[in-house]
Amino acid sequence: MSAYKLLLLPGDGIGPEISAEAEKVIAFLSQAGVAKFEIERGLVGGAAYDAHKVAISESDMALAQSADAVLLAAVGGPKWDGVPYNVRPEAGLLRLRKDLALFANLRPAICYPALADASSLKRELVDGLDIMIVRELTGGVYFGEPKEIVTLENGEKRAVDTQVYTTHEIERIGRVAFELARKRRNKVTSSEKANVMRTGYLWREVITALHKREYADVQLEHMLADALGMQLVRWPKQFDVIVTDNLFGDMLSDEAAMLTGSLGMLPSASLGAADANGKRKAMYEPCHGSAPDIAGKGIANPIAMIGSLGMAMRYSFDNAKAADAIDQAIAGVLGKGLRTIDIKGDAPSSISTSQMGDAIVAEL
Amino acid sequence: MSAYKLLLLPGDGIGPEISAEAEKVIAFLSQAGVAKFEIERGLVGGAAYDAHKVAISESDMALAQSADAVLLAAVGGPKWDGVPYNVRPEAGLLRLRKDLALFANLRPAICYPALADASSLKRELVDGLDIMIVRELTGGVYFGEPKEIVTLENGEKRAVDTQVYTTHEIERIGRVAFELARKRRNKVTSSEKANVMRTGYLWREVITALHKREYADVQLEHMLADALGMQLVRWPKQFDVIVTDNLFGDMLSDEAAMLTGSLGMLPSASLGAADANGKRKAMYEPCHGSAPDIAGKGIANPIAMIGSLGMAMRYSFDNAKAADAIDQAIAGVLGKGLRTIDIKGDAPSSISTSQMGDAIVAEL
Ligand SMILES: CC(C)[C@H](C(=O)O)[C@@H](O)C(=O)O
Ligand SMILES: CC(C)[C@H](C(=O)O)[C@@H](O)C(=O)O
Repeated sequence: MSAYKLLLLPGDGIGPEISAEAEKVIAFLSQAGVAKFEIERGLVGGAAYDAHKVAISESDMALAQSADAVLLAAVGGPKWDGVPYNVRPEAGLLRLRKDLALFANLRPAICYPALADASSLKRELVDGLDIMIVRELTGGVYFGEPKEIVTLENGEKRAVDTQVYTTHEIERIGRVAFELARKRRNKVTSSEKANVMRTGYLWREVITALHKREYADVQLEHMLADALGMQLVRWPKQFDVIVTDNLFGDMLSDEAAMLTGSLGMLPSASLGAADANGKRKAMYEPCHGSAPDIAGKGIANPIAMIGSLGMAMRYSFDNAKAADAIDQAIAGVLGKGLRTIDIKGDAPSSISTSQMGDAIVAEL
Repeated sequence: MSAYKLLLLPGDGIGPEISAEAEKVIAFLSQAGVAKFEIERGLVGGAAYDAHKVAISESDMALAQSADAVLLAAVGGPKWDGVPYNVRPEAGLLRLRKDLALFANLRPAICYPALADASSLKRELVDGLDIMIVRELTGGVYFGEPKEIVTLENGEKRAVDTQVYTTHEIERIGRVAFELARKRRNKVTSSEKANVMRTGYLWREVITALHKREYADVQLEHMLADALGMQLVRWPKQFDVIVTDNLFGDMLSDEAAMLTGSLGMLPSASLGAADANGKRKAMYEPCHGSAPDIAGKGIANPIAMIGSLGMAMRYSFDNAKAADAIDQAIAGVLGKGLRTIDIKGDAPSSISTSQMGDAIVAEL
């Protein structure tokens, strides 16, 4: 059994706490002989800034490049509000995405039946919800140039961001969406603002052509991003796979995750293109953020982080058995009524981050 | 009594139907001697394209420039999906906003108590909800240059949109938000993606400085746009005034409107700067779209359109009495249980567009 090279980046806020719980699961899988890991650890975000005055060090970037998968917890927090822009915590995350060329961000929005009542939406609207948002992750307004603030002659400032998309970038993310849809409910909703943005116009054109050429068997619909944001609230179950750009994907995937009432539960995968051997670079992280307000209290929910490890087992390490076991263990502890405070709802009591990690390991 | 110069632009889809109901209210106000109107009518969107192959004609633009207020219903529909980009229906709306310099878009998200059950959210989360979204409307990615699609040497296409904001643009929309907050619950939430976008960074800087300099009495918080999209779902009542850019405002105001369950009820105002006489150019329109799927069926809800006339009475014609009367008439018919189909809920039956207009006039 060859070892999986896994780089752990706990990051900031609740990151280290939830990361420690994922490590318990890793230790268990190793001991049980299910998988062998070669673990490296690094710093990203505010943690890297505090140590080295960068958002991620060159040596940690090198580890990320050579890892089979990166498991990142979360970055950012008010502590670093004042640091220079190019070394702010998010810059570490963005560099990882860009330098590893992780163009495909898969964000499932699943409503765990045990948690349907935790949603702000009426139960019947979210119970059984299962959407997959495919977000383009290395293009758009996140990386386009010019991206700058200049001071004008009159002393005012002028800021610019540039959204760029090419045929190729849209096509490859479209493919990911159509392929996923074929394994799910065979429907793709593509979203942009074609009525206002030239990138949106090209997006719709390219997705339409790709669909016609290679994926005519999949049902395709186009929906403007503002309308999609509304339809998510109104009737989320109408969606199967949603494919959209970097910025709309950021907004819509967060909205969808919050709808489920299971935000602390949702993992995500960011994937690169497959190489000649079918291997792809990959990073896995929870959908939620670093939650600085509850950091250090031992009450954060580690499930999304452990679920992200599960996604790594599935997508990077080709170990569906281990992935299934992790998913079942999560469903198991939830079924037993174990809850961290964020998903407590009407439950009589809640358990700590560490108790939740232990419970999942016990279930395994 | 001097006459108010009002330009009516019914536009597309359900536009003409709901516009006709607003005209009934106008006729009533005239006959009752409450206000005197000088009404002009014009074409915008697909209607203008069908007639003149433009999204709005020069003569209608001239009417808009000389009107005290423009009352627009809605533009767009699949019928015009294939028309050239620069004359697509939305181009008419965008030109009106830009040429009239209507930089401040006020979008109230109010939950009418009679309709709280129509929301997808649990009743207690939206009952009594009253948010005002202040969206910047003449800048950002909607209008920045370059904005183009070019064909590359390899035959691929490359599309670009440019988001631009200057100190001045951010300051003037910030002022609108702070002033409104003072008359409401004194809280402003400013939203951008300062962690990813230079425009967001400048936005936060300028709003922070303006607050410190002139509005320190107002409570200010900054929230990233993706987080705000989530918080709107989780606990919308935490917000009072939200101020944000053109694109985020598009998304967030639609999401907020949908949350209320009262989408067909919500008007909006787009205002320019005040001139030396305190007069400002203004356009009023429903938050909802042209709903081509139900156009011509006589079932559209005219309340947002009539409410938009009410907003015109308040903000352009300085006639708070007439505005209040319209708002009360709307509340009155709802109180009586009258419902168009979109807000029918568990009601035993629904009424037509025209019956709703008549009922509001009768109530007046
Ligand atoms: C932290 C931030 C840079 C990031 C983003 O905007 O992409 C986050 O919101 C996300 O969705 O992963
Ligand atoms: C019709 C469209 C151009 C417009 C916009 O994107 O601004 C609409 O969605 C709105 O919010 O008024």
